[in-house]
Amino acid sequence: MDSRAGLAATPGALPYYVAFSQLLGLTVVAMTGAWLGLYRGGIAWEGALQFNVHPLSMVIGLIFLQGDALLVYRVFRNETKRTTKVLHGLLHVFALVIALVGVVAVFDYHRKKGYADLYSLHSWCGLLVLVLYFVQWLVGLSFFLFPGASFSLRSRYRPQHVFFGAAIFLLSVGTALLGLKEALLFKLGAKYSTFEAEGVLANVLGLLLVGFGVTVLYILTRSDWKRPPQAEEQALSMDFKTLTEGDSPGS
Amino acid sequence: MDSRAGLAATPGALPYYVAFSQLLGLTVVAMTGAWLGLYRGGIAWEGALQFNVHPLSMVIGLIFLQGDALLVYRVFRNETKRTTKVLHGLLHVFALVIALVGVVAVFDYHRKKGYADLYSLHSWCGLLVLVLYFVQWLVGLSFFLFPGASFSLRSRYRPQHVFFGAAIFLLSVGTALLGLKEALLFKLGAKYSTFEAEGVLANVLGLLLVGFGVTVLYILTRSDWKRPPQAEEQALSMDFKTLTEGDSPGS
Repeated sequence: MDSRAGLAATPGALPYYVAFSQLLGLTVVAMTGAWLGLYRGGIAWEGALQFNVHPLSMVIGLIFLQGDALLVYRVFRNETKRTTKVLHGLLHVFALVIALVGVVAVFDYHRKKGYADLYSLHSWCGLLVLVLYFVQWLVGLSFFLFPGASFSLRSRYRPQHVFFGAAIFLLSVGTALLGLKEALLFKLGAKYSTFEAEGVLANVLGLLLVGFGVTVLYILTRSDWKRPPQAEEQALSMDFKTLTEGDSPGS
Repeated sequence: MDSRAGLAATPGALPYYVAFSQLLGLTVVAMTGAWLGLYRGGIAWEGALQFNVHPLSMVIGLIFLQGDALLVYRVFRNETKRTTKVLHGLLHVFALVIALVGVVAVFDYHRKKGYADLYSLHSWCGLLVLVLYFVQWLVGLSFFLFPGASFSLRSRYRPQHVFFGAAIFLLSVGTALLGLKEALLFKLGAKYSTFEAEGVLANVLGLLLVGFGVTVLYILTRSDWKRPPQAEEQALSMDFKTLTEGDSPGS
């Protein structure tokens, strides 16, 4: 503990890892944009370019913003728990809304072109991610943001919430890799094996996606980087604990 | 602690989760075999069927056996630490050897057919997995199995070993998904979108691969399922601790 203002000291290496994750995340977003701009004609809601809204939205929403939402508790270590929770929930809402724009784009594009929907492994994984993401958000909201859930219920659910949050994020990264691969093989076909510039760029983008996923997971799982409980929370937790574990009228 | 024989009690739900993981893992292996048998003409080392050695070997080695190697410390809770370590190391050796057979198969097949090597995202991820897997095995061996490393050095390295072990396993699952997708798109092409039986079977196989990965990760990360230290280890650890932290001749 830092004695100056009763604040918990931030672990020395954490800011560098967080900065590295942001560098990777922003590079992934920029490189997705560059790929679509250089090799796929850019982005528009009308016409054939509507498809390109899909990869960019999904990468911004379900990779970058979702990843950053997971890091909120590691980065904001001295704000009140409530502020941090609201930021965590809001980032996930932004992520979900942007992802939904991306999903609408691809279904609308398929409809106009007369293509089949939901036949590929990429789409099955994507659908699974969306359903799980929405359920996780709803359950998280009702357990942690509404005042109804008891302290002991929250404590029991918290590890599950963290595990499934990380699992959904990793599945999002995997789904992005599948989508990237699909986009490459549909367009390049056998030319993929001649080390075309687009193929190499997309492969590097794939490795950067993996790098972002691993870095976020590392920051999230290092036990000595977890957010320490604030003084106010500790006092509050004790109250809750006494209430829920003792012979309170509600138990 | 179980009072009957000084053994630590196994958490109630753990055996069911382990059984479920094994059911999923074996189904993945069987389904990979069924896919190759039903739609790809089976397996042989000579001729065009040599390629099929690749997916089967990688799924047995880098998915099923690697996953099981990670679970050794959760399943064998009352054996000596040394026995468990040796089993963990051996399973990883089997996994690596079987994976190498799979890698040789695909390179040999490419060479005979005159195909290019290492151009796809699947192959880049696969190469990364193999290098990381080998390095992790070597570093793990030198830290944990040879008697040279001190207790404090082992304690500091252990969380890194566990994190990178899980990350390499997850990257293996992701690489398998990319390979499956590649094999489907190369053969089915536009027919993939007509819900061909092979495509549907392979999609289900993909989801089962994801399920196996998530289940192993869940068992591995549940903090109350970690292997408790044995009585002999606790005594030993104390000795090591005294030796390494006190003024021992070796320090």
